Amino acid sequence: MAKIQIINGPNLNLLGTRDPETYGSVTLEEVEMGLRVDFPSVSLTFFQTNIEGEIVDVLQKTAADAVILNAGGYSHSSVSIRDAIDAIKIPVVEVHISNISAREKFRHTSIISPVCAGVIFGFGTDGYHLAVTACQRMLTRYDI
Amino acid sequence: MAKIQIINGPNLNLLGTRDPETYGSVTLEEVEMGLRVDFPSVSLTFFQTNIEGEIVDVLQKTAADAVILNAGGYSHSSVSIRDAIDAIKIPVVEVHISNISAREKFRHTSIISPVCAGVIFGFGTDGYHLAVTACQRMLTRYDI
Amino acid sequence: MAKIQIINGPNLNLLGTRDPETYGSVTLEEVEMGLRVDFPSVSLTFFQTNIEGEIVDVLQKTAADAVILNAGGYSHSSVSIRDAIDAIKIPVVEVHISNISAREKFRHTSIISPVCAGVIFGFGTDGYHLAVTACQRMLTRYDI
Amino acid sequence: MAKIQIINGPNLNLLGTRDPETYGSVTLEEVEMGLRVDFPSVSLTFFQTNIEGEIVDVLQKTAADAVILNAGGYSHSSVSIRDAIDAIKIPVVEVHISNISAREKFRHTSIISPVCAGVIFGFGTDGYHLAVTACQRMLTRYDI
Amino acid sequence: MAKIQIINGPNLNLLGTRDPETYGSVTLEEVEMGLRVDFPSVSLTFFQTNIEGEIVDVLQKTAADAVILNAGGYSHSSVSIRDAIDAIKIPVVEVHISNISAREKFRHTSIISPVCAGVIFGFGTDGYHLAVTACQRMLTRYDI
Amino acid sequence: MAKIQIINGPNLNLLGTRDPETYGSVTLEEVEMGLRVDFPSVSLTFFQTNIEGEIVDVLQKTAADAVILNAGGYSHSSVSIRDAIDAIKIPVVEVHISNISAREKFRHTSIISPVCAGVIFGFGTDGYHLAVTACQRMLTRYDI
Amino acid sequence: MAKIQIINGPNLNLLGTRDPETYGSVTLEEVEMGLRVDFPSVSLTFFQTNIEGEIVDVLQKTAADAVILNAGGYSHSSVSIRDAIDAIKIPVVEVHISNISAREKFRHTSIISPVCAGVIFGFGTDGYHLAVTACQRMLTRYDI
Amino acid sequence: MAKIQIINGPNLNLLGTRDPETYGSVTLEEVEMGLRVDFPSVSLTFFQTNIEGEIVDVLQKTAADAVILNAGGYSHSSVSIRDAIDAIKIPVVEVHISNISAREKFRHTSIISPVCAGVIFGFGTDGYHLAVTACQRMLTRYDI
Amino acid sequence: MAKIQIINGPNLNLLGTRDPETYGSVTLEEVEMGLRVDFPSVSLTFFQTNIEGEIVDVLQKTAADAVILNAGGYSHSSVSIRDAIDAIKIPVVEVHISNISAREKFRHTSIISPVCAGVIFGFGTDGYHLAVTACQRMLTRYDI
Amino acid sequence: MAKIQIINGPNLNLLGTRDPETYGSVTLEEVEMGLRVDFPSVSLTFFQTNIEGEIVDVLQKTAADAVILNAGGYSHSSVSIRDAIDAIKIPVVEVHISNISAREKFRHTSIISPVCAGVIFGFGTDGYHLAVTACQRMLTRYDI
Amino acid sequence: MAKIQIINGPNLNLLGTRDPETYGSVTLEEVEMGLRVDFPSVSLTFFQTNIEGEIVDVLQKTAADAVILNAGGYSHSSVSIRDAIDAIKIPVVEVHISNISAREKFRHTSIISPVCAGVIFGFGTDGYHLAVTACQRMLTRYDI
Amino acid sequence: MAKIQIINGPNLNLLGTRDPETYGSVTLEEVEMGLRVDFPSVSLTFFQTNIEGEIVDVLQKTAADAVILNAGGYSHSSVSIRDAIDAIKIPVVEVHISNISAREKFRHTSIISPVCAGVIFGFGTDGYHLAVTACQRMLTRYDI
Repeated sequence: MAKIQIINGPNLNLLGTRDPETYGSVTLEEVEMGLRVDFPSVSLTFFQTNIEGEIVDVLQKTAADAVILNAGGYSHSSVSIRDAIDAIKIPVVEVHISNISAREKFRHTSIISPVCAGVIFGFGTDGYHLAVTACQRMLTRYDI
Repeated sequence: MAKIQIINGPNLNLLGTRDPETYGSVTLEEVEMGLRVDFPSVSLTFFQTNIEGEIVDVLQKTAADAVILNAGGYSHSSVSIRDAIDAIKIPVVEVHISNISAREKFRHTSIISPVCAGVIFGFGTDGYHLAVTACQRMLTRYDI
Repeated sequence: MAKIQIINGPNLNLLGTRDPETYGSVTLEEVEMGLRVDFPSVSLTFFQTNIEGEIVDVLQKTAADAVILNAGGYSHSSVSIRDAIDAIKIPVVEVHISNISAREKFRHTSIISPVCAGVIFGFGTDGYHLAVTACQRMLTRYDI
Repeated sequence: MAKIQIINGPNLNLLGTRDPETYGSVTLEEVEMGLRVDFPSVSLTFFQTNIEGEIVDVLQKTAADAVILNAGGYSHSSVSIRDAIDAIKIPVVEVHISNISAREKFRHTSIISPVCAGVIFGFGTDGYHLAVTACQRMLTRYDI
Repeated sequence: MAKIQIINGPNLNLLGTRDPETYGSVTLEEVEMGLRVDFPSVSLTFFQTNIEGEIVDVLQKTAADAVILNAGGYSHSSVSIRDAIDAIKIPVVEVHISNISAREKFRHTSIISPVCAGVIFGFGTDGYHLAVTACQRMLTRYDI
Repeated sequence: MAKIQIINGPNLNLLGTRDPETYGSVTLEEVEMGLRVDFPSVSLTFFQTNIEGEIVDVLQKTAADAVILNAGGYSHSSVSIRDAIDAIKIPVVEVHISNISAREKFRHTSIISPVCAGVIFGFGTDGYHLAVTACQRMLTRYDI
Repeated sequence: MAKIQIINGPNLNLLGTRDPETYGSVTLEEVEMGLRVDFPSVSLTFFQTNIEGEIVDVLQKTAADAVILNAGGYSHSSVSIRDAIDAIKIPVVEVHISNISAREKFRHTSIISPVCAGVIFGFGTDGYHLAVTACQRMLTRYDI
Repeated sequence: MAKIQIINGPNLNLLGTRDPETYGSVTLEEVEMGLRVDFPSVSLTFFQTNIEGEIVDVLQKTAADAVILNAGGYSHSSVSIRDAIDAIKIPVVEVHISNISAREKFRHTSIISPVCAGVIFGFGTDGYHLAVTACQRMLTRYDI
Repeated sequence: MAKIQIINGPNLNLLGTRDPETYGSVTLEEVEMGLRVDFPSVSLTFFQTNIEGEIVDVLQKTAADAVILNAGGYSHSSVSIRDAIDAIKIPVVEVHISNISAREKFRHTSIISPVCAGVIFGFGTDGYHLAVTACQRMLTRYDI
Repeated sequence: MAKIQIINGPNLNLLGTRDPETYGSVTLEEVEMGLRVDFPSVSLTFFQTNIEGEIVDVLQKTAADAVILNAGGYSHSSVSIRDAIDAIKIPVVEVHISNISAREKFRHTSIISPVCAGVIFGFGTDGYHLAVTACQRMLTRYDI
Repeated sequence: MAKIQIINGPNLNLLGTRDPETYGSVTLEEVEMGLRVDFPSVSLTFFQTNIEGEIVDVLQKTAADAVILNAGGYSHSSVSIRDAIDAIKIPVVEVHISNISAREKFRHTSIISPVCAGVIFGFGTDGYHLAVTACQRMLTRYDI
Repeated sequence: MAKIQIINGPNLNLLGTRDPETYGSVTLEEVEMGLRVDFPSVSLTFFQTNIEGEIVDVLQKTAADAVILNAGGYSHSSVSIRDAIDAIKIPVVEVHISNISAREKFRHTSIISPVCAGVIFGFGTDGYHLAVTACQRMLTRYDI
């Protein structure tokens, strides 16, 4: 049974209440619930934090087969999270809810993308669903 | 029955033979076949060209409900394709096979991303599978 | 009788339907018709294409006394069109329908402007009218 | 009867004597006279100054229906003139005699273009003629 | 018998008539004829087009042992041509007639140079002669 | 009774001892005391932390009517704090003790300023006094 | 009795009528009146001009104890005003009505900030009130 | 007896297991042990954390005579750590295990170097040994 | 008898009182007097203003054989003054009292230098003496 | 009999031993020998130095009809060598053994290319052969 | 017995007399003497030159096991020295006496660092001592 | 009797023959002769070299009271010459014959200007005359 760790970074605990025009009105709890329903055969673990170093901690310690990471605002500056992704052996899929390329210039570049297995953004909370599917296909078919 | 137009740009006709370390050994025909098998309930149309303006032509004339576009090398410079995406009313999903953020600097920015519904890259040819799934969810659930 | 070739580049065939807030609701056919009515004493030829190289072809082969060129998205990157303008002996007037300086940053610079006889933008489809007037004055008064 | 204010900025009082290769040999007085002859049905007012703030003053106080502005060297740096254009309700047409895109790099960008109704450059003093035509068309047809 | 494909890009069909001070007065036909005379033991094929994607097409389909490519204006922006060069197995020699480093800034960088076997520019149409010699030496001595 | 949350970021706990030439010799405790004396009719809450994510936490959870934030070194890079300010509904006033525009270049730009209600810097610890006054005026007069 | 000179630069005479969404609907006269009411014990002098050099003149000649300066569009380019501020012995407080960091990029940097005693922006016309308070505190407490 | 605080930042707890080609196969524990053996006459304290603000905390509170700091990924962006180093009175020696100038561009600049007493990088874990020697010499000979 | 116009721009009326460490303690009057004493055989005219456009005015109208210009803060941004220098037929010598290359970055580039006959800076008020000597030599020996 | 001076700059004396993957295993002596064999009718002179100024010296003093110059690392920064090439009357052909456009960024631009007659790089030591051929053709056919 | 070559570049012969605040008052002779005393078991050779190419010469010809190089001002621009370091087989340790990251911007980047074994700066002349220790450890323990 | 050392850098030995349009037709010998005639009471020493390090040598060893330096192409890149100027105690006057601000961009910035006493350029070989006058005035009047 595939184990996937889903990590959400700063301000994603506000999902559903914060700027619904950009992020939609679904809450993080509803996203989690939806994923559990859609992927009953996957073991999903969820973690949210506003603290950069705690994302590093969880990445280092996870026992999952793959990680789905929405690092929020830290995506654009955190060398530490990048190094942690690079250091662990399992694939990390980067997700953003909004289309970051269509927002402020400082959101156009993610410093963690180059070390992630793949990147998905702009599909709203559907992005998490696509990311789990991506992990499944990677783990099943390519055996990375 | 959802209709999806899949457009592949320059050099993607070489898929499977060109630089397999970056692009894998699956051919474009095999990708198409795989998608038809995986998504029997979707009407898929395929088009490949090396000519920028022909991508503009097909985007303007498509009768599909959504487009999946891998514009290859034109992704990084084509204002014309961007304008065509912006001009049509249906969602366009951008796909890249490789992790463009981990390659040469001129591949890091896609000029078409800001006008696409969403972006997927780095998952190899699995990206097309994820893109069809994304289109399905967009068309079904959000009714964009 | 002065001969003027009017070349419209990518996506201008969508004029009137595409983003009316930016480009207005007049179609390219209506623009042509309007010019023929306003300038009965000028021999006007019209050409539209989405393909960069075909603009180069038409520029090289035109038998007109002057060219009016709206190169659309190719204005911002096409060294080839610039070289073709530079190579032919007749004046080329650059036109843009929208105020390109007030839109996205990549539209602020036109790589073809330095080799054009003059530039007109921001007046909507009136720009074509002004461009024909400009050609007339150039051809009549200055005999370039 | 349409009222148009024509404002010429620094060094344009030297027109005809200064660098004729770039600016031609027609003087500013001759330009004015030519416009009065060509547009007898338009009420034209002329103003020239070398002082940035006086352009701001005239823009703020004009009772014209439209303004034609050649801000000369101030075009490339004056936030104050830009703000004045933006603050008044009437359309301002920017004119440059030379092809500014083909000269020194600091002349390529006009900070006032984004707030002008339209821009015309490179046609020599014909540019003023085109600008009056542009104003007429705007005032008559679109009723801005 | 060595087979060499010579591809000339946009505006090179104007050679001899366009800007002779920069490009000389020899026509493309005369260049071809000269090469056939100088290299009777080499099988030379010539192709010229103004369309970017057609250069990609010819590169993909050539059966030659080596390619000599003067991509003209596309040299400075075409990721697609670069990718095609990179994808085929045979050496490509880049040629420019003029000294591109001594012209406008946008001509200083060729995006295709890094994937070419070698680069020759500034020698006028002699550059093609040198390129054939280079191909001969590569094919004979190094057996690339 | 207006409630104002005052958040001080990294190293501000050293106020009064650290680099007195730049920051003065008043301690953070003295600042707090002074504000309580000057504004007896305002309910003031104070918080200081060196951890970026804890500033995000406090911003998300505050029950105050307005926030005064001196984010110290995080002002120049924290997308996460910016997003938190943007997500909450109450006005945030940015304060810096020193004149950041007169110090090292990396201190010239604050990434959080664009989402703050207003910005005050350079007045030493008087800046906090001005910020409370600003909040009072905003809350009383404009009823934001 | 403290003497404060308040200088307003270009276009601020339009306050209340110009772009009320950005600048509010209070006129400059009302601002002045409000300040006289709020600060009866301060001797306030007001000056407005659209001419850069006149701001320099007034700065050089003022007999006030402190200056409050909203240099408008000149804030972003005037080395001359900066030099005048630097040359006089009294503190100058920079004020902007709007949040300049949230507007066009050329408004983000003020060339005069580094030589001002402090900077206040984004609080609408309340900024002048805060600036007078800041001057009072500086003059009374620190005796600069 | 000299007291030296050694602080290791994010991901350095993975030393020996993470990317051995870059960082070697020695663990952080072995580094510590080696230093205690090599410098029996120095009182060494070790601290490792993945959280930026905790490095600030430890820097502020240390009672050591000198600090050796490997701030890992925070070296390239943390104004807060820089400010903390600048605020304390004791010398801080910056160490990096790898040759950061030979890696990705974002690692070439350390924002904390200008406020450190000295910098050592590229010597693998030997860098810590050299840093302790450097501290000894500073403390003994120069009495900083 | 050679006629030389000496123009001093903004804040130079403060010479001798403003920042003596940078500009020395000699006043502008003393500079003028010194020059009259040193060059009795030259007809010297002096003009000082804080207004950019007035420098343009004086340049346009001068009847001198040569101009010595210290444009102060306008040197770094004034296209208008540059154009005026370029438009008049007589040589203009640029002078700065301080070593502008050793001060703030925005003072390193003078936009007027490329159109001046020569440039002298860093010699304090001696620069004016050298400039008059330079004019004399130019007028006498080279007859420009 | 044509006289050609071949100048090799810094580190080219190591050819054949230094980084053979980039530069091949042929020594500079073997290159010279090969050229003498291939071009018996040309008078070839060879010079190698590691000192920038000595390249300037030799360029100034050469009595050859043409120069072939591989300036090595000085190609990217030496204004002095550029000036020397520009000052002498004979054509200089620039050669690089490796494909400099495919290596580190600082090798992409040669400051001497704009003043050279032509440039050849990427063909290994064959580049010298091509350069002699180029000189022969220039000297014979064009009589430069 | 380990052999170490110590190379000092331009102006280091002035050590002790030049700018003692930055470089200390110890002379280069005293540094050499100190190293011979501290490392009696190492064979040390010293060389100083102001000429870039002579550093290249010595690097190419050294018979030492390791090199310690303070290339002074050439560190920031010399591709030639970088290439020489890269070409030789022995480790080179880069040393700077001052903290180059805290000085002028052009000193922040050393073009030779990426090809050096390690880098040490900011410790005054202690840096040479640390460098010898570093070489000893490299040569003894890692047997590079 | 004042002693002045005049140092001329690379290619200045070609003065009079090299590019007379830029540098004039006077030779370096004639310049020297002219200066000896004009300044009989000054002890002048002349030195010319094409080698960067030799300029450093002469600067370090000069016994003159002041130096006049035309460092030619090294002016734009030589940190070593800058450091030598900075290290010696006597004033150095920088001279350029041509107006470097009106030539190629890489000549606009002199890295040595900030450490020179003053700078003179654009006056042809008259610049040396002005520089000697400047030195005289400095040595006599200010006693630097």
